[in-house]
Amino acid sequence: MDVISVIRTKRDRGRLTDEQIDWVIDAYTRGEVADEQMSALAMAILLNGMDRREIARWTAAMINSGERMDFSALSRPTADKHSTGGVGDKITLPLAPLVAACGAAVPQLSGRGLGHTGGTLDKLESIPGWRALLTNEEMLAVLDGTGSVICAAGDGLAPADRKLYALRDVTGTVEAIPLIASSIMSKKIAEGTGSLVLDVKVGTGAFMKSLDDARELAETMVGLGTDHGVRTVALLTDMSTPLGRTAGNALEVRESVEVLAGGGPADVVELTLALAREMLDAAGLPDADPAEALADGSAMDVWRRMITAQGGDPDAPLPVSREQHHIPAPATGVLTRLDAYDIGVAAWRLGAGRARKEDPVQAAAGVELHAKPGDHVTQGEPLLTLHTDTPDRFPYALESLTSAYDIAPLDTPFTAAPIVRERIAPAT
Amino acid sequence: MDVISVIRTKRDRGRLTDEQIDWVIDAYTRGEVADEQMSALAMAILLNGMDRREIARWTAAMINSGERMDFSALSRPTADKHSTGGVGDKITLPLAPLVAACGAAVPQLSGRGLGHTGGTLDKLESIPGWRALLTNEEMLAVLDGTGSVICAAGDGLAPADRKLYALRDVTGTVEAIPLIASSIMSKKIAEGTGSLVLDVKVGTGAFMKSLDDARELAETMVGLGTDHGVRTVALLTDMSTPLGRTAGNALEVRESVEVLAGGGPADVVELTLALAREMLDAAGLPDADPAEALADGSAMDVWRRMITAQGGDPDAPLPVSREQHHIPAPATGVLTRLDAYDIGVAAWRLGAGRARKEDPVQAAAGVELHAKPGDHVTQGEPLLTLHTDTPDRFPYALESLTSAYDIAPLDTPFTAAPIVRERIAPAT
Repeated sequence: MDVISVIRTKRDRGRLTDEQIDWVIDAYTRGEVADEQMSALAMAILLNGMDRREIARWTAAMINSGERMDFSALSRPTADKHSTGGVGDKITLPLAPLVAACGAAVPQLSGRGLGHTGGTLDKLESIPGWRALLTNEEMLAVLDGTGSVICAAGDGLAPADRKLYALRDVTGTVEAIPLIASSIMSKKIAEGTGSLVLDVKVGTGAFMKSLDDARELAETMVGLGTDHGVRTVALLTDMSTPLGRTAGNALEVRESVEVLAGGGPADVVELTLALAREMLDAAGLPDADPAEALADGSAMDVWRRMITAQGGDPDAPLPVSREQHHIPAPATGVLTRLDAYDIGVAAWRLGAGRARKEDPVQAAAGVELHAKPGDHVTQGEPLLTLHTDTPDRFPYALESLTSAYDIAPLDTPFTAAPIVRERIAPAT
Repeated sequence: MDVISVIRTKRDRGRLTDEQIDWVIDAYTRGEVADEQMSALAMAILLNGMDRREIARWTAAMINSGERMDFSALSRPTADKHSTGGVGDKITLPLAPLVAACGAAVPQLSGRGLGHTGGTLDKLESIPGWRALLTNEEMLAVLDGTGSVICAAGDGLAPADRKLYALRDVTGTVEAIPLIASSIMSKKIAEGTGSLVLDVKVGTGAFMKSLDDARELAETMVGLGTDHGVRTVALLTDMSTPLGRTAGNALEVRESVEVLAGGGPADVVELTLALAREMLDAAGLPDADPAEALADGSAMDVWRRMITAQGGDPDAPLPVSREQHHIPAPATGVLTRLDAYDIGVAAWRLGAGRARKEDPVQAAAGVELHAKPGDHVTQGEPLLTLHTDTPDRFPYALESLTSAYDIAPLDTPFTAAPIVRERIAPAT
């Protein structure tokens, strides 16, 4: 087997054999296939695609590159969620303890943010004392003791994916549906969850800008999960405007705690409940009532125990930014558009995100939204508040907001897009 | 300027700007753009193409990455030839001294073989004492003193191409017409020749298997040369069967000397004269008579002086292989096909070529053809003779010859394909 013949097969629009896929993933993980060879193959896959069999085998080969976890000793059924990433997407924070409060075990292996989308671990690290890095034993202990855990994925899970993901990030080969699907699903299947709900974002703030692309990605991932015995469902959800009223780290933790306290923005509550119902259904708990678990404080109880078990203090004050800058509404009227991508870039530039994976993030940086599409705004009143510890970033953040929103005359009819746009379940 | 945006532009079927091309070639040469990024870009170029403006700019950027030579101090017009590579293609050896004998100066910067096609320098190195590596001053002295020089290209010419070519070789991105054309032409233009004749091979033994691809490559290169003020013409020539009756190093030198002595295989003589006439015409010497220069020994005189000037002994016996293996014709009849690629692979496996650029080659290894398509063959008489110093290679070479030829009944009509299939000149 030689790598040039594998590259040529895909370059010339052929299908990779099972043997070619197994060999190239293994040889790349071992360092026998060089980065420059894998990046040429990744570009050929991006441009020429892979069929369902190829994607399934590619995913299996990445799973087989590392260890698999096993939650079968837990007394509860496991349910996991994965979001393809959006702006203001703090849903994991209220969702994991909520689903645990309803009877499932939620092992949520999460990532850090890169580019304009925030990372769940970055958000939680704004809680004083909280630790993302757990050993497998610590992770199982938190999960068993509190019902949910949110932590960093260990190095042993799908090392081929870890290496390939870092390569794709610097070679313009991130946006390939077969590679995105196999990357996400190899980690989730290796993690050993019994059921999985995918939140596939679509819109300006998402990887997938079009509903067709999002649907193709969702169908691919649902097929992969199903083929590996994981009950998998996907929701296609709107990411044309940020979720909730904050984008940032501590800002989003605060908003998540509001949701767990029974309040919070309507869209965050709606999506949290929709995903909770899917997870509970997939976990075999269709009669659980997540709305009740939010209302009666049981989800908040799980949250406090989970944060405490990972070294965090749920009562400690969250960091507040040293400097704020208000952006007033330029006119009175109806806010008809508030662009997710532009807000995400602004939050990133204020310090909430990182340009390289080695960079630190600011806990308190981000953007606060004083209105959402459909709301009335008044000229001169604050529309957005920018938060940062390093005010020299304000001009740079402002640049990304020059066409971030539209305001129409007050009598303009406006109907907000639904948050959940489609549901993709396995063919039965 | 960042490399991911450049990769994405081409990946998404856009056109690279002049600024993007200049920056990416320079940054790659300096090591700021990594190999894995350039290979992803090369694959995107291979699959999505480049337009004429992009190819011209890419070529200019590679020329600007290094030094340019200048032959304007010579009293004669300069003429160069480049072949895209074939099996048994020893034409440079008789051609350079022949064209010099007719009044042009021929600075022939040549390469080594890789894969199944032989390299001119490897062939000449089978002459005892001959040196391929000359300084720029030595090269000019040989050229000025004898009228022609065949030597290795210096490290200073188009270093971007040198680095990119090595990368393409290991990443399955060799076969991209924009990259092949810019690679060849950047070196030839930097070398400073006044006129250039391209021998673009087409057939099983060539990179370009189809006439359409060969024509596209030729037109692209003729356009590039013309745009840079080099009088450039291309001949599309047949490479479905080996040129002449030998493929190997010393074997081909011997055959070339036969041509210079007024003999040699008809196809080698025909192509040598056709290319010589084009070179002399492009150099402004349309009245020169290369057939006469072969017949009167003046081409042989230049050959002897050129070989001597580079340390070689034109009278020294050439190396002979330690072992030979005859392959008899399996039937009596007309040889209707003798495959260039299969013969090239056999010669390579016998030791005439190299698998990696660090490998040595055997001077005496190769394949001798006792018949060419159209010739009558007799069952049991030798059809091919294999030469090597390492007879354990015979079985491996034989494997590549299992379907290398066809023999038809004696009365089968057969018409040989013409050697020169098309001529591509600049639009006037």
